[in-house]
Amino acid sequence: MFEVAELGQSLSREEFDQQVPSLRTRLLEMQQTLLDASFPVIVLVSGSDGAGKAVLVNRLNEWFDPRYLRTLAFDDKTQDERERPDYWRFWQALPQKGHIGLYIGSWYSDPIAKRVAKTLNDIELDGYLAHIRIFERMLVEDGALVIKLWLHLSKAQQQLRLQQLEADPATAWRVTEKDKRHLALYDSFRSIAEHTLRQTSTAEAPWVVIESADPHYRDITVAEHLLERIQHHQALHTCSDTPLEDENAEAVALIHRQKTLLGNLDLTLALDKTSYQQQLEHWQGQLSLLARRAYQQRVSMVIVLEGWDAGGKGGLIRRIVPALDARNYQIIPIAVPTDEEAAHHYLWRFWRHIPRDGRVTIYDRSWYGRVLVERVEGFASRAQWLRAYSEINDFESQLVAHGTVVVKFWLHIDKDEQLKRFKEREKISYKRHKITDDDYRNRERWADYEQAVNDMVERTSTEVAPWHLIEANNKRFARIKALKTLCQQLEQQLGG
Amino acid sequence: MFEVAELGQSLSREEFDQQVPSLRTRLLEMQQTLLDASFPVIVLVSGSDGAGKAVLVNRLNEWFDPRYLRTLAFDDKTQDERERPDYWRFWQALPQKGHIGLYIGSWYSDPIAKRVAKTLNDIELDGYLAHIRIFERMLVEDGALVIKLWLHLSKAQQQLRLQQLEADPATAWRVTEKDKRHLALYDSFRSIAEHTLRQTSTAEAPWVVIESADPHYRDITVAEHLLERIQHHQALHTCSDTPLEDENAEAVALIHRQKTLLGNLDLTLALDKTSYQQQLEHWQGQLSLLARRAYQQRVSMVIVLEGWDAGGKGGLIRRIVPALDARNYQIIPIAVPTDEEAAHHYLWRFWRHIPRDGRVTIYDRSWYGRVLVERVEGFASRAQWLRAYSEINDFESQLVAHGTVVVKFWLHIDKDEQLKRFKEREKISYKRHKITDDDYRNRERWADYEQAVNDMVERTSTEVAPWHLIEANNKRFARIKALKTLCQQLEQQLGG
Repeated sequence: MFEVAELGQSLSREEFDQQVPSLRTRLLEMQQTLLDASFPVIVLVSGSDGAGKAVLVNRLNEWFDPRYLRTLAFDDKTQDERERPDYWRFWQALPQKGHIGLYIGSWYSDPIAKRVAKTLNDIELDGYLAHIRIFERMLVEDGALVIKLWLHLSKAQQQLRLQQLEADPATAWRVTEKDKRHLALYDSFRSIAEHTLRQTSTAEAPWVVIESADPHYRDITVAEHLLERIQHHQALHTCSDTPLEDENAEAVALIHRQKTLLGNLDLTLALDKTSYQQQLEHWQGQLSLLARRAYQQRVSMVIVLEGWDAGGKGGLIRRIVPALDARNYQIIPIAVPTDEEAAHHYLWRFWRHIPRDGRVTIYDRSWYGRVLVERVEGFASRAQWLRAYSEINDFESQLVAHGTVVVKFWLHIDKDEQLKRFKEREKISYKRHKITDDDYRNRERWADYEQAVNDMVERTSTEVAPWHLIEANNKRFARIKALKTLCQQLEQQLGG
Repeated sequence: MFEVAELGQSLSREEFDQQVPSLRTRLLEMQQTLLDASFPVIVLVSGSDGAGKAVLVNRLNEWFDPRYLRTLAFDDKTQDERERPDYWRFWQALPQKGHIGLYIGSWYSDPIAKRVAKTLNDIELDGYLAHIRIFERMLVEDGALVIKLWLHLSKAQQQLRLQQLEADPATAWRVTEKDKRHLALYDSFRSIAEHTLRQTSTAEAPWVVIESADPHYRDITVAEHLLERIQHHQALHTCSDTPLEDENAEAVALIHRQKTLLGNLDLTLALDKTSYQQQLEHWQGQLSLLARRAYQQRVSMVIVLEGWDAGGKGGLIRRIVPALDARNYQIIPIAVPTDEEAAHHYLWRFWRHIPRDGRVTIYDRSWYGRVLVERVEGFASRAQWLRAYSEINDFESQLVAHGTVVVKFWLHIDKDEQLKRFKEREKISYKRHKITDDDYRNRERWADYEQAVNDMVERTSTEVAPWHLIEANNKRFARIKALKTLCQQLEQQLGG
């Protein structure tokens, strides 16, 4: 989830200065028309310490018309607030229709801080989060636009930033003891934050993670995002002939990033034949041992294979299964649903094949089709695929809660490599059937698919079931990396 | 919540026999057209032991075409089921589009049974319920119609029924040890069931409580309800020009009852002047003492006054406040919202006046306007007021969780009494302003309001904040009963 905000996005001073004037004009124009809107805008600014929440809010106050933008900062409760139910203070602060409320500190602050401090346990935290979902849904059902920003810093960035702030007398005061304590707790904070975001990233009020190491990039990205979300929401609320299905479609909430996760992969990574053979033998042996232990310990495993056409899924499966006992696994190829499958919820056909304890199911393509091909080709409505992210997270967390190991691979190749492989396949008689016109047509939508993959990883790479992106231009490298990852994931679950 | 299912509803053998043929025809016709529907129907049959879940399901199997109606019974998990995530077995059983699945035992059975057996605590139970909300919402968003029936028996009825079953050798086998244990735990079961229903009665999948002491009444009521819900859902799903707002409006889920709560009140109850004076003095004195203790213990109180026009709210308030310290209470009359209030969520203006610890707020009319006048007069859309029940329950449970005592009164008079009071008011100069044309117009909608009040009590009379229905044709009786109730509720919270 946070991987997408650790790509090193930045904006130079010059680019920033160049973009600001037009941005400010558009923001003010938007605010003018927003005044007549029949809904309030609620913006939560949360995130890592040192990610610049206060600086960002100052900037927004400078760029927006402050008459219709109210900043609401919540810290420890006042006497007045303690004497009422928890949410009383948030209710008092709700912006009215046509206005924007910027929340620094919100209904998320307390539960996260208390969980980090261990005054709440996991189940209690989930109780708070369940209530947050109810509260936010109520706001959205009343028409409100709820935008939840998570400003993210990696551990190294956070450390660096606090050091820089402390070194400068003008800013040293901004580093509190609390910040330092939080840094010491970074890993725990990150994991709790990840859990919180996953539990509360709903279709109607999704979280947006903003890479915040570079203030120029952060501020522009946030302002552009607010602009887009508000304008989109306005359009939905004034256009009366919106189809029913797209009611939730306002949850755009996707950041357009220059740098992408897939773009960041090094596709030159390769392995020579000799070391490939050696490593293949080694990791297949390891996997075989681990799979036997998993069977004995009654631990089940779900392997998800996704990737570009001709990305090497089939070849990888053929390298995995020799390490498994044929009685214990099944491979489920996902193609067009059967009649019966189409007559059920789209997740039904995947639930059917969930392995029993000690068994393995390999899904050759999977439920992620909902947010990949179905999204790009328009088979699923915008509301449907936006909803799917949290449906999928919920599904996978049920598997993990049961004790199943979930390992998800995306096999990444570039467009040239794909073309090369298509051509090769056409030359080999027993592979020719694998290439159809569809495959060529899909290439035209490469950029759309790339966006979909990025969004998918942003929304569904969770602590309990992370995505593993495999550099797959070189098949040998890809297979070894995937086998090794499988072993590591299994070993982690099985213990020493 | 269960009060509405303890009214003694029944149907004679003759009425039953007369209604069945037409009902069966309509059920079969409905099922024929349902086959082409793009959604499945999921019916949960839950409720008290001995309420006849199995008998009802048999009956439905007899009345419906069993080819498209599947009964799904869940009991203790099989080996196969234990080796998969909890919900796997429910997914397997989901009916396909156009079909009906009848669940005896469902995702509710385990959490409720475990909480009764104390292997779950309150917070853990809420975790399960939060997950159920997510699951059901997912089904509904995919188009499913989810009908949740709760077959209710009072404690006395349950006892009687088990005795009758046991006495007859032909049915004695149906009384299990489990049933007997459950009877011993009736109060605990009722309270946990009430909590469960409240937490999971959402606008998209509300619970419907069915009075089940009389099998004829139960079976006919359920079948008519299924028919109505399914036909309504079908109409919504085929009529493409449904306005956006009404998407959730399918959640009709209101049982048409011959006997109503209000109808069951004895409006002849009265007090003579002498005993009224004595009791008034006594209960005002009590209230005064209790209010002082509440202030000292920092316990706040919210009093909600609802009732027919001229029902005596003002007079009651004037009898309550002499017992309170003028510095500690406020009376909030609810009329047309101000501009600022109208620019916020409808609950906002009530949150504003929530008392701080130790204080009292008296709401002269309240948030219940949403499901009364706004519903009847069409100021709120169907989706809005249907949503409001759970919003209100959530709001009040936040108050109660904070330690606030919430006391809700409905002052009930009949139509004749109201007319008499209107006429009296018109004769008295300083009361004349209280009568407007609106008051007379509202009388024309008496039956609609009566239905709305019944639904309100059904959906929002909870263990933590029950409704108190006051027989108010006689003002003296009403005032004493209300004062006494106030004292009891306060005392309960403050302890001996």
